Amino acid sequence: MPTIKDIAEQAGVSISTVSLVLNGRNCRVSDATRELVLHTAARLHYRPNRLAVGLATRRTMTLGIILPDIGNLFFSELAKGISERAQAHGYSIMICNTEDDPEKDIKYARILSDSGVEGVVLCMSSCCDEQAQKELSQELRSRGIPMVAVDRLPEGGNSCTVAIRYRKGGYLATRHLTGLGHRCIGCITGPLLGKNARERLDGYRDALCEADLPLDESLVFEGDYHRKSGACGAEALLRYGATAIFCSNDLMAYGAYETARQIGLHVPENLSVVGFDDILFSQMLEVPLTTIRQPALEMGRAAVMLLLQKIEDPDRPVEPCWFEPELMIRKSTAAPNL
Amino acid sequence: MPTIKDIAEQAGVSISTVSLVLNGRNCRVSDATRELVLHTAARLHYRPNRLAVGLATRRTMTLGIILPDIGNLFFSELAKGISERAQAHGYSIMICNTEDDPEKDIKYARILSDSGVEGVVLCMSSCCDEQAQKELSQELRSRGIPMVAVDRLPEGGNSCTVAIRYRKGGYLATRHLTGLGHRCIGCITGPLLGKNARERLDGYRDALCEADLPLDESLVFEGDYHRKSGACGAEALLRYGATAIFCSNDLMAYGAYETARQIGLHVPENLSVVGFDDILFSQMLEVPLTTIRQPALEMGRAAVMLLLQKIEDPDRPVEPCWFEPELMIRKSTAAPNL
Repeated sequence: MPTIKDIAEQAGVSISTVSLVLNGRNCRVSDATRELVLHTAARLHYRPNRLAVGLATRRTMTLGIILPDIGNLFFSELAKGISERAQAHGYSIMICNTEDDPEKDIKYARILSDSGVEGVVLCMSSCCDEQAQKELSQELRSRGIPMVAVDRLPEGGNSCTVAIRYRKGGYLATRHLTGLGHRCIGCITGPLLGKNARERLDGYRDALCEADLPLDESLVFEGDYHRKSGACGAEALLRYGATAIFCSNDLMAYGAYETARQIGLHVPENLSVVGFDDILFSQMLEVPLTTIRQPALEMGRAAVMLLLQKIEDPDRPVEPCWFEPELMIRKSTAAPNL
Repeated sequence: MPTIKDIAEQAGVSISTVSLVLNGRNCRVSDATRELVLHTAARLHYRPNRLAVGLATRRTMTLGIILPDIGNLFFSELAKGISERAQAHGYSIMICNTEDDPEKDIKYARILSDSGVEGVVLCMSSCCDEQAQKELSQELRSRGIPMVAVDRLPEGGNSCTVAIRYRKGGYLATRHLTGLGHRCIGCITGPLLGKNARERLDGYRDALCEADLPLDESLVFEGDYHRKSGACGAEALLRYGATAIFCSNDLMAYGAYETARQIGLHVPENLSVVGFDDILFSQMLEVPLTTIRQPALEMGRAAVMLLLQKIEDPDRPVEPCWFEPELMIRKSTAAPNL
């Protein structure tokens, strides 16, 4: 990578002359010299060091996204929303995929801050514990880099977040099932270290209480948001007698479909399934999925707007942005076949 | 961001002492001073400038990915394959989403090379013309950054690529339709500026020729790989009398499904549809999609292996990596209902 020293050598002028020209302060430089410097810089494909420019102007016009699973359509839609809105405001985006590993949350926070991003949208790993969360916030705060958390919420209420009301979502999903007459309803959660996994579970419990149904811990299966854990969970819950399952995301609901198909059960005749997310494909499945809609694109856009506010005016308090969950009733739920 | 100058000032030692300690060359430094420098560096949250370290050691252990649409599951699976394999080799990944805009291909190539990535996996915008492609390769080559092209191939055969045999894929898809007895077969292509869109179309023509069917340009609709263009294309082709459509990706096939549903036609009774990609959801649709499988995860992994080879030994020629297309026959194709 050529430096201003290289330009100075090649053009036969001093480094300070090159610096004056490249920074547009030409007053003390002759036209001929200025031309020579600019020509040499172009010939060497010189570009100012992003970090150096960033330190001087504090503007690199780049934002970072840290997310757990780029192969999960919820997160890729979210990234798309963030990317579109950011680019509309002249920002470039760098996306980092942690494979749901909290150590990589921190590693990527470092890489992004080293790369001079002006802000970070963070979807934490689902098993990021309190200690790791603190380290992560500390990492970004010590560099003065604003952060907005999306979907997976840090513990404690003081960070800037974009999310939907998960507890209400879990409640709406489960109330739909109790309303259909189900009495033995399973729940496949995300990793319960994560606050928003616990909140969906709380919502499930709220609806059971409201319907005077007992809380049976054997009906709660802790999954990991991947399809396979949905399949395993459904197997366990069906064995225990569940006639309906609330899955904490759509991918795990697809896993529940798979299990049902494999053991010759039909959705919804033998098993009702409700998901959470409403990713694009859920309405296009063989049995379109009843699910709780999370508007990923809109949430991504909102995260960018909050982040830009924090970049423009770091001291102004930013209100968290809550989206309301919406129950999308499709074909995967019906009254129990008793 | 603290510098070694800050550490030197705070610790009351010279910059060269700090440099010696931080680079592990402690021979000329007393234990007490060494401790003081390390303690001060830790207190100030000092970390070496990535670019400076990269310039000195030429290792930042970071790779970049440039891709056109992170919301398209083919690319998010590809990114996942790249990310997994790269992380297994100790590399971090930064993903950039161009929204299929060739100007952003170049912009992100610059941002990534400025950020010190050691290599780039590039999925070009579908409408990246020859001039833009040259600029893009030039950009990376001038920085000495190896590049592997995936899926969307640069013109000219001399770059390092991972792809499937698109022409054969287009042929297999269309031969399946001629074999079922279709005589009026439409084709919805990607942007024909892109080589691999043209190759799929060539494969479609190969199969028509083989079946002694005329090449009718009215049966070719140029789409843009997005669902909406599949819906528009299907409308036009149905009006022209097509009984079957080969779509150059699965998302456009989903668009064709939508059009059929909207005008009261059934797939496959009234319209046969073949896709290209075989993204996860294509087998889970209400009418599971017959399609050409592109193994996105495996292609991502192969791209990383090629890139690491080029990083280790830039001068050794690297063989392109070709995957064979595979026809997955499901429920969206049948004999025409004449």
